[in-house]
Amino acid sequence: MSQSSTSADRPEIERRFASVAIVGMGLIGSSVARALRASQPGARLKGYDQQATVREQVRQLGLVDEVAASAAEAASGSELVILCVPVGTSEAVARSLGPALGASAIVTDVGSSKSLVAARLRRVLPGARLVPAHPIAGSDRSGPDAGSAELFRDRWCILTPDEHARTEDVESISAFWRSLGARVEIMSAEQHDLVLAAISHVPHLLAFASMAAVAALEEEHGHDFTRFAAGGFRDFTRLAAANPQVWKDIFLSNKVAIRGVSTVFRSMSEQLERLVEADDEEALLRALGNAQRTRLAMSPVG
Amino acid sequence: MSQSSTSADRPEIERRFASVAIVGMGLIGSSVARALRASQPGARLKGYDQQATVREQVRQLGLVDEVAASAAEAASGSELVILCVPVGTSEAVARSLGPALGASAIVTDVGSSKSLVAARLRRVLPGARLVPAHPIAGSDRSGPDAGSAELFRDRWCILTPDEHARTEDVESISAFWRSLGARVEIMSAEQHDLVLAAISHVPHLLAFASMAAVAALEEEHGHDFTRFAAGGFRDFTRLAAANPQVWKDIFLSNKVAIRGVSTVFRSMSEQLERLVEADDEEALLRALGNAQRTRLAMSPVG
Repeated sequence: MSQSSTSADRPEIERRFASVAIVGMGLIGSSVARALRASQPGARLKGYDQQATVREQVRQLGLVDEVAASAAEAASGSELVILCVPVGTSEAVARSLGPALGASAIVTDVGSSKSLVAARLRRVLPGARLVPAHPIAGSDRSGPDAGSAELFRDRWCILTPDEHARTEDVESISAFWRSLGARVEIMSAEQHDLVLAAISHVPHLLAFASMAAVAALEEEHGHDFTRFAAGGFRDFTRLAAANPQVWKDIFLSNKVAIRGVSTVFRSMSEQLERLVEADDEEALLRALGNAQRTRLAMSPVG
Repeated sequence: MSQSSTSADRPEIERRFASVAIVGMGLIGSSVARALRASQPGARLKGYDQQATVREQVRQLGLVDEVAASAAEAASGSELVILCVPVGTSEAVARSLGPALGASAIVTDVGSSKSLVAARLRRVLPGARLVPAHPIAGSDRSGPDAGSAELFRDRWCILTPDEHARTEDVESISAFWRSLGARVEIMSAEQHDLVLAAISHVPHLLAFASMAAVAALEEEHGHDFTRFAAGGFRDFTRLAAANPQVWKDIFLSNKVAIRGVSTVFRSMSEQLERLVEADDEEALLRALGNAQRTRLAMSPVG
């Protein structure tokens, strides 16, 4: 990876934001609000969500100083605008900010795919001080009541600044995420999308496909298969409990990397199946052993 | 499923075993010993394991009344012989019992695949009172010190008696597993192998293949991808931490069902990928939503 940037690297001389607008107050947005409240109690927070029920929840939970009536109203006068909306809608939301965005405001997002999404943000906000970001943190719950001030603690947040991004803005957004407890890494949007396709997007696709396959087999054979499933199958398919709307957007916004990574995953499973078909005990044992070693060598959740 | 047999169905009039031989004292065998000690303290237990170090552990843990010097010695005089060895070795172990096995002894096993394994057991023990079984329980730990008296509590144990099995022996083995806390289901070996291919064997294959794919991508791109992995990827690949020797045997002993089920899994992932490629938002959302519903409808671990 190109540059690593952790809190130990340099003193915290970066810009702190006195006012922050959070657009989209679901799990991630509400967690940002909670973590900001804890780490920077002086910052003034404005929040907005497209759904009136979410805005009402945010108000009742007291997550922000002001619940805005629109994304533009939230952005107006804010030093930092953070888009916490599904990747399929961030372009439209960013476009709606347009005139309300101050010239010195920094815009960032939390989207799970970056190349296409960042290019769209750049296109609709051509003059903006944009630093795309992706905190790799989540939960199988959603909504503002599911958020947590600790969601980003010791998790990675990957920044993917393009060639127009200012160095000092990248520093500020790095410091921002570190202040929320995250570890920050900087890489290109393309590299991010490849890595995420491998460790998240294609695994999600396979988990959804696995549940669809078991449902198809149950229908074909007229039996309930999953009642016999043990913990391993539940873990394997937990990703399929994720929000279909969110994941439709992520899949569609990272097609190229997903296509390439899927090919590698498929080729590996076909290779294992060939060894099984050929009764090649020795090569099969070696392949399974290598895969097991890779799994066991994986560092604890970072 | 053909027959369901739970403790509520009928009074416990089945044969209880005064002497039990456990051949193979790893996680499963040692858990059987512990659970038997707790539920039937009067039963005399003999244990054997091919590895001298395991036999020594079993002796020091005091898991059985007698540590035998061979599988045949353990079987000799025992009313029940339970084979807790990897499916690739159960045939050879069963053959070694031959002459030591009493005419009234019942033989059972715990193998994760059944058609081929049960046919092999039947072949090498032609006159034996055989009732193949598969307790669907495990752990990512192994060895006699990893066992637990509670391993089978509220887990399924599937019995796959062939046409030669005596009804009273099936009843006795059902009662045996219920006494260890398990829920018992009876089905054909073919049906068992199909269900297990879907909810365990192919998922294991895909988890091993996924780790191999990520390792290949890391090598191709010269980066560490897995350091960015969150909890979802760890869950998805946890099955790849399983013992390669054990899983090589399971894959090789259930080739037909794995082949058929793999085809369905692959066709489902190709279908999702086609929808992504075609930007078919509506059909993609529907497919993901159906998969998510199947996942959410899965009953808690049984």
